[in-house]
Amino acid sequence: MTKYTIGVDFGTESGRAVLVDISNGKEIATAVYPYSHGVIDEQLPDSKVRLEPDWALQDPQDYIRVFQNTIPAVLKESGVDASDVIGVGVDFTACTMLPTKADGTPLSDLPEFREQPHAWVKLWKHHAAQPEADKINETARAMNEGWLDRYGGKISSEWFFSKALQIVNEAPEIYDAADRLIEATDWVVWQLTGTETRNSCTAGYKALWSKENGFPSKEYFAALHPKLATVIEDKMTTDILPIGQKAGGLSERAAQWTGLKPGTAVAIANVDAHVAVPATGVTEPGRMVMIMGTSTCDMVLGTEEHIVPGMCGYVDDGIIPGFFGYEAGQSCVGDHFAWFVENCVPAEYEIQADERGLDIHALLEEKASALKIGESGLLTLDWWNGNRSVLVDVDLTGMMIGMTLATKPEEIYRALIEATAYGKRIIIETFQKNGVPIHELVACGGLPEKNKLLMQIYADVIGLPIKVSASKQTPALGSAMFGAVAAGESAGGYDSIYDAAKVMAHLKDEVYLPNAENQKMYEKLYAEYVILHDYFGRGENNVMKRLKSIKAEARK
Amino acid sequence: MTKYTIGVDFGTESGRAVLVDISNGKEIATAVYPYSHGVIDEQLPDSKVRLEPDWALQDPQDYIRVFQNTIPAVLKESGVDASDVIGVGVDFTACTMLPTKADGTPLSDLPEFREQPHAWVKLWKHHAAQPEADKINETARAMNEGWLDRYGGKISSEWFFSKALQIVNEAPEIYDAADRLIEATDWVVWQLTGTETRNSCTAGYKALWSKENGFPSKEYFAALHPKLATVIEDKMTTDILPIGQKAGGLSERAAQWTGLKPGTAVAIANVDAHVAVPATGVTEPGRMVMIMGTSTCDMVLGTEEHIVPGMCGYVDDGIIPGFFGYEAGQSCVGDHFAWFVENCVPAEYEIQADERGLDIHALLEEKASALKIGESGLLTLDWWNGNRSVLVDVDLTGMMIGMTLATKPEEIYRALIEATAYGKRIIIETFQKNGVPIHELVACGGLPEKNKLLMQIYADVIGLPIKVSASKQTPALGSAMFGAVAAGESAGGYDSIYDAAKVMAHLKDEVYLPNAENQKMYEKLYAEYVILHDYFGRGENNVMKRLKSIKAEARK
Repeated sequence: MTKYTIGVDFGTESGRAVLVDISNGKEIATAVYPYSHGVIDEQLPDSKVRLEPDWALQDPQDYIRVFQNTIPAVLKESGVDASDVIGVGVDFTACTMLPTKADGTPLSDLPEFREQPHAWVKLWKHHAAQPEADKINETARAMNEGWLDRYGGKISSEWFFSKALQIVNEAPEIYDAADRLIEATDWVVWQLTGTETRNSCTAGYKALWSKENGFPSKEYFAALHPKLATVIEDKMTTDILPIGQKAGGLSERAAQWTGLKPGTAVAIANVDAHVAVPATGVTEPGRMVMIMGTSTCDMVLGTEEHIVPGMCGYVDDGIIPGFFGYEAGQSCVGDHFAWFVENCVPAEYEIQADERGLDIHALLEEKASALKIGESGLLTLDWWNGNRSVLVDVDLTGMMIGMTLATKPEEIYRALIEATAYGKRIIIETFQKNGVPIHELVACGGLPEKNKLLMQIYADVIGLPIKVSASKQTPALGSAMFGAVAAGESAGGYDSIYDAAKVMAHLKDEVYLPNAENQKMYEKLYAEYVILHDYFGRGENNVMKRLKSIKAEARK
Repeated sequence: MTKYTIGVDFGTESGRAVLVDISNGKEIATAVYPYSHGVIDEQLPDSKVRLEPDWALQDPQDYIRVFQNTIPAVLKESGVDASDVIGVGVDFTACTMLPTKADGTPLSDLPEFREQPHAWVKLWKHHAAQPEADKINETARAMNEGWLDRYGGKISSEWFFSKALQIVNEAPEIYDAADRLIEATDWVVWQLTGTETRNSCTAGYKALWSKENGFPSKEYFAALHPKLATVIEDKMTTDILPIGQKAGGLSERAAQWTGLKPGTAVAIANVDAHVAVPATGVTEPGRMVMIMGTSTCDMVLGTEEHIVPGMCGYVDDGIIPGFFGYEAGQSCVGDHFAWFVENCVPAEYEIQADERGLDIHALLEEKASALKIGESGLLTLDWWNGNRSVLVDVDLTGMMIGMTLATKPEEIYRALIEATAYGKRIIIETFQKNGVPIHELVACGGLPEKNKLLMQIYADVIGLPIKVSASKQTPALGSAMFGAVAAGESAGGYDSIYDAAKVMAHLKDEVYLPNAENQKMYEKLYAEYVILHDYFGRGENNVMKRLKSIKAEARK
């Protein structure tokens, strides 16, 4: 009797459920629910309360609606009987967090807090807590907090305690009213099972926790703000469960929402990028998984603990149980090309694309493919959205050099692609130099599907073979796999993510291999990239920061 | 009885005649003749001979057709009697040169040479003689040639002997067959008068001549190529006439072409940019004239001889008799914005411009005007076409820094304008530091008419007031003024260009004054520009050159 599992992937704009055949990983049915309130970044719903710049909120009820809409839809579409669905897994953007009451009720659901922005879910890309991140970093450096090294020496405004400290600073009444501060991914699992659990992945990557040392000390939190001294005891928990475990069984209420059977196994919560790793079949060191979309997440497993400067972080059991999970990333990849297409492509090209029935990206890719390596004379630093890994500096900006009066749009487009490839190579070399071996790349996400030129450029610039996930919805597949592991072998699932990956994860046959001629040309260009990377990125000329401060002054 | 004079301005694509009232400088009639063969840069006319990249030729018969078409046209349009036209002046792009027989017949007119590219006119922007320019510079440095300092230490591939040496190297039979090598501006005057004369302006600025020292030595020319040892005696002349003099009277043949009276005074030939100076009323030191079009020429007079590093050159009597005429320039100004509009403006903006009935430049100017100084965070080096003055390096390329995902096209457009203003300020400061005072700017050419934002940015960045020529065809007016001087006061003209300028040259009432607040912001941005200018331009990081050599390798 075939058994099934459902993965639910919560993205920035929508949630998606995928129903998967446990015996082969085949994706039988998919359903997507766009959040009715989307990203709330201008005004609170049904309210006149306007948000400051850099805010990004969500409505937690949208997440419940994802369960209510997508799971019944995949059951219906596939015709699968609910009793054959043995597990559910969930992954989420992170850090996306919210304040709740002790029973899990979001503060934003309570009438008295509905007009208070800090009561709502803070989405990963809520960037208004930079002063708090600065305070967290300064204080950690001043107090010689050892955990700072695990995160490449600097934590981001996107992370859990930056957001928590912003609540304390700006809305102490919300902080006081909150019984829990919780990652949205843990919160949706709580809604499914009726029991609060916390996962090791977001705790490790976003909330400064480690298996060995737990959370930072009371003294440290007190130094951030007196109210925060007991934040772990008061609003969180030290009971952090490793990914790959079962969180509980589906509650009666959630069974009604979804049409699944009460008691169906629900996996410990997870993060979209991290859950993609086993879904590409990677459960061992040496193969870096690149989740490539608007930005890129890079994940690699290691058997040893290494301090790798400028990385997003590493967490023991953070991706796959039994390994250190190292994470890095580039903050501007697909966004780079989208910016270019929106702002820099002449009407003539749009007309050409229209006439030929091509997407504008496809036309640009075609034109850019016809160029020889180096013939544009262009070189670019890929920092339109700052630098997330190696330099870890949001105040860095883009740079392009080599333009002439003969420079064409496709040359710029190709230079932007190449820049992200050089950026990736610096990340990979930084891992390698610091004891984390990488000998193969595995790509998933939207970009590898869409842009073969980009994939070949990455192979040529980096000098490693690149394989591509067979799934177009790798994170949802990964969550489904963790659902099968939560159910366990006895119920028709698997006892470990390794076993699940062997059967359920697939790569395409196509492999992008480095071309020796191309590599030779790119060596020369990469050498120039490194010089400019260090000149502008490591303090020799801080012009990017000075321009940003002039900009801030001008906008006052 | 009102007297008139005609100025004929030979541009890159067309020639233009303007008939001017001597008593007040009023432009009574204008006619333009687009060259029937335009710029010949792909294939010789009526031939299968294809040209190499960087070639740019013209057909000398097109220049004759300018006389035949435009002068009759302005006479007809104005109704002025030919007997009331007392003088003709001519200006030309430079260095634009050709090989001729002793009677002035261009070699390209002879059937036996018609398929030989080197027989044709080499237009100013023929850039294929870079190896020859390199040889000229190296040899001059090796032989310690003093004249090199007059040209900022380096001469260009566009200049006379670069082009002459290319003929010797690549087509010795053409060099041998040529009785004369001559600037096109002198050649057209020869065609008008029937007598060969050579002017001090092109000789000084483009052919290494000076009033004090004449041409470089035989030994130097011999070191370039044995055939060149006697080039001055064989193909040129040491009889160089100062501008402001009369070349002769109109020949019978030219009178038939033009409808003017035989014997009408014809001025010594001149150059478009240089002739514009008195036409803006500038006949004294301290006021720099900027001729602003696709590229920009900057002219300033000095009473003393100064070595100004990185300038195009200075020539005694080169612009106005009695002064050292200093010349500098920027190779990419209007071209910069044209490149941007052609390659980087999204369809959405074209639609907006169409809907509002605006030129796309006007729309961009409007949007860019709404930006506060510094708020884009962008900074640009204006070297899309190399750097003509101060750095004198054609191998430099463009650079832009500070881009983010929020960067808009109008921000880039404004950054390009600002870059050319910073470039101009460096030129002005270099003059000032080296003893050539500048306290006011006077603009003419196409750009000041079209772009008020640009003018205000220049005033704010440079910190000097800018006045604007009242004429839309300043060079042609300047030539007409020199025509009036060639005729002399006794014939109803003027005895000097000073007298002519007082009466015939006019400025607009509008003056662009620096705004103190704006200057303060631009000081900060300019400081950043200077750092990057020196880093990329003075050898600290020669990445631009290395990218160019990678580019050349890729294109092989």
